[in-house]
Amino acid sequence: MRRREFLQKAGVVAASATLSPLMFAKAQNTLRWELVSSFPQGLDTIFGGGEDFARYCNEMSGGEIEVTVYPAGAQVGGFEVFDAVASGAFQLAHSASYYFVGRRAAHGMFTSLPFGMNAQQQIAWIEVGGGQELWNELNEPENLIAFNSGNTGVQMGGWFKREINTPADLQGLSIRTAGLVGEVYAKAGANVQSLPGGEIFLALDRGAIDAADWVGPYDDEKLGLNNAAPYYYTPGWQEPSATLCLYVNLDLWNGLDVRHQSIIQNAARSANTRMLANYDSKNGAALQRLVESGTEVRTFPTEVLDTFRQNWNEVNAEKAAADPFYARAVASYEEFMASVRGWHDTSEAAWHRYVYGG
Amino acid sequence: MRRREFLQKAGVVAASATLSPLMFAKAQNTLRWELVSSFPQGLDTIFGGGEDFARYCNEMSGGEIEVTVYPAGAQVGGFEVFDAVASGAFQLAHSASYYFVGRRAAHGMFTSLPFGMNAQQQIAWIEVGGGQELWNELNEPENLIAFNSGNTGVQMGGWFKREINTPADLQGLSIRTAGLVGEVYAKAGANVQSLPGGEIFLALDRGAIDAADWVGPYDDEKLGLNNAAPYYYTPGWQEPSATLCLYVNLDLWNGLDVRHQSIIQNAARSANTRMLANYDSKNGAALQRLVESGTEVRTFPTEVLDTFRQNWNEVNAEKAAADPFYARAVASYEEFMASVRGWHDTSEAAWHRYVYGG
Repeated sequence: MRRREFLQKAGVVAASATLSPLMFAKAQNTLRWELVSSFPQGLDTIFGGGEDFARYCNEMSGGEIEVTVYPAGAQVGGFEVFDAVASGAFQLAHSASYYFVGRRAAHGMFTSLPFGMNAQQQIAWIEVGGGQELWNELNEPENLIAFNSGNTGVQMGGWFKREINTPADLQGLSIRTAGLVGEVYAKAGANVQSLPGGEIFLALDRGAIDAADWVGPYDDEKLGLNNAAPYYYTPGWQEPSATLCLYVNLDLWNGLDVRHQSIIQNAARSANTRMLANYDSKNGAALQRLVESGTEVRTFPTEVLDTFRQNWNEVNAEKAAADPFYARAVASYEEFMASVRGWHDTSEAAWHRYVYGG
Repeated sequence: MRRREFLQKAGVVAASATLSPLMFAKAQNTLRWELVSSFPQGLDTIFGGGEDFARYCNEMSGGEIEVTVYPAGAQVGGFEVFDAVASGAFQLAHSASYYFVGRRAAHGMFTSLPFGMNAQQQIAWIEVGGGQELWNELNEPENLIAFNSGNTGVQMGGWFKREINTPADLQGLSIRTAGLVGEVYAKAGANVQSLPGGEIFLALDRGAIDAADWVGPYDDEKLGLNNAAPYYYTPGWQEPSATLCLYVNLDLWNGLDVRHQSIIQNAARSANTRMLANYDSKNGAALQRLVESGTEVRTFPTEVLDTFRQNWNEVNAEKAAADPFYARAVASYEEFMASVRGWHDTSEAAWHRYVYGG
């Protein structure tokens, strides 16, 4: 597609000779953009990240940047948003990088890695630890650029129809999960299924699967997963945080002036802050409701977590061996994690030990 | 001061008849504002929060909002910024709400409370838990409005020239600290001194004080505190996080259009994210350097922490009894904290237990 056609398709409003000079100046810079979300509207917190982004853009640009937000399925499927924005069919997407590990495994670490960093640490790596630059390098050949725009915090380990007391209990377990986590479960002998959020409840309720991980109390309650399985496992070793992201078509991004780029980037950053705050605000009450209605919270035994960790180390090594970029990026991730964990072990963790007990 | 004079003093550039229409439209909205920081330029991370804010404002407004940042002492003293912005002498300040507990104790909880929330939790309370509305209510009679614009994360408990093994070791201890924390130490029999950052090293080195708390490894190393005391205590019970804030003159804020308000608020939010990321990025390496050069990290014994907590509960109750607003605001704070801790005990803390040990 030639640039002029592309920009027209991309919703840059052409200036008209009939406008007055002031209106001209305004209209010349007006962007009417469409954002396709990977999330259903009913999950108000995660879908709401895209709406927050749109509102901040509109406010900060004085209406120059108008973003219409579409839930998953309204224009394209939740997992099709990457291609839809790369091709220029849509200008923006709100999604999660790790949905695209099938394309290249390195997309995983920009959302979450098993046994990886929590929200505060992951945000720090992206913001100032070199993560953003690596992410740009990964997305550039796809004609995309991505920014943090949401985080769930530490997730739960998932819903199980039976207790997991030893690694042997994972043999033959049929579980719904996502991304590289599936490979970790597969190494433990589980059968892994990939299902969209809207199909999890029925599969779990009818026994087509024995377990499922989704997000955390507030979202899982909305899907009704507590009515389909009794045991709710912690900690969420598979997603110690999950970063949602804003994808922008790179050609379009490169054509923006610094002002619009800055508004978009800061709007995404604000949406990030708001989503994490919303989850922290809502999950407490949701967890309490779940427990009061009969959900049994269980902690994965250390032996089971150690098995997951060993399997993850193997998966991680395989991905690094297969892709030099993955190897380089995960080295940055792990180096940053080691440093920040050294600090948090002395600070955050010491504080947790006193507040929450050992 | 009458409104017109005030706005002129406040740096709103008056439109000139000699400007062309387009330049007119631009100049009419140009704000040349000055920000007074409570922090010295040498502490690049905390002072840098004000600079980040200024840069984001400038970028997102296309140069319409120009903010000049002055370090503590360049225009007014670090603790004088509250009055300087309330009066309209300056438009903006970058500071910490708890510096102003002498004016009203309730200013404390918008930075940090002893045994209170960590950074992620505190941000959530302000953003979506009702904290911002209470903060607005507190600041409105002062002709100010404030927004989160920086966070240090969990701080360290401070530097001590001798070990603290029992509550009795606090008797007669001479310590530099800030805000309501001083009252907690005083109840334990310590002598509390309030010193600006730049005076701490000499006082500690010469033995005028026995202990001092400042921020954390990166900033404390810059002040050279490790050369004045051997023991570095954790956890930072006195500041499980510390929120820095942007103060805006309220008259001026109310005169802004939604676009400029939104740019300022989102620039502050971005500065908040960046500062926490910077601390998490820098503290790990700084802590390692400190330990390698002989600093001995110590954990406050549980008995000592319990004493601090009991004393804090008394101070907190006294403040609530003395000011109905404090009572109402701290009830909101504590209710939010109980809910988010219920969630984090099951999620973040469970994760910490596996990653960092019990």
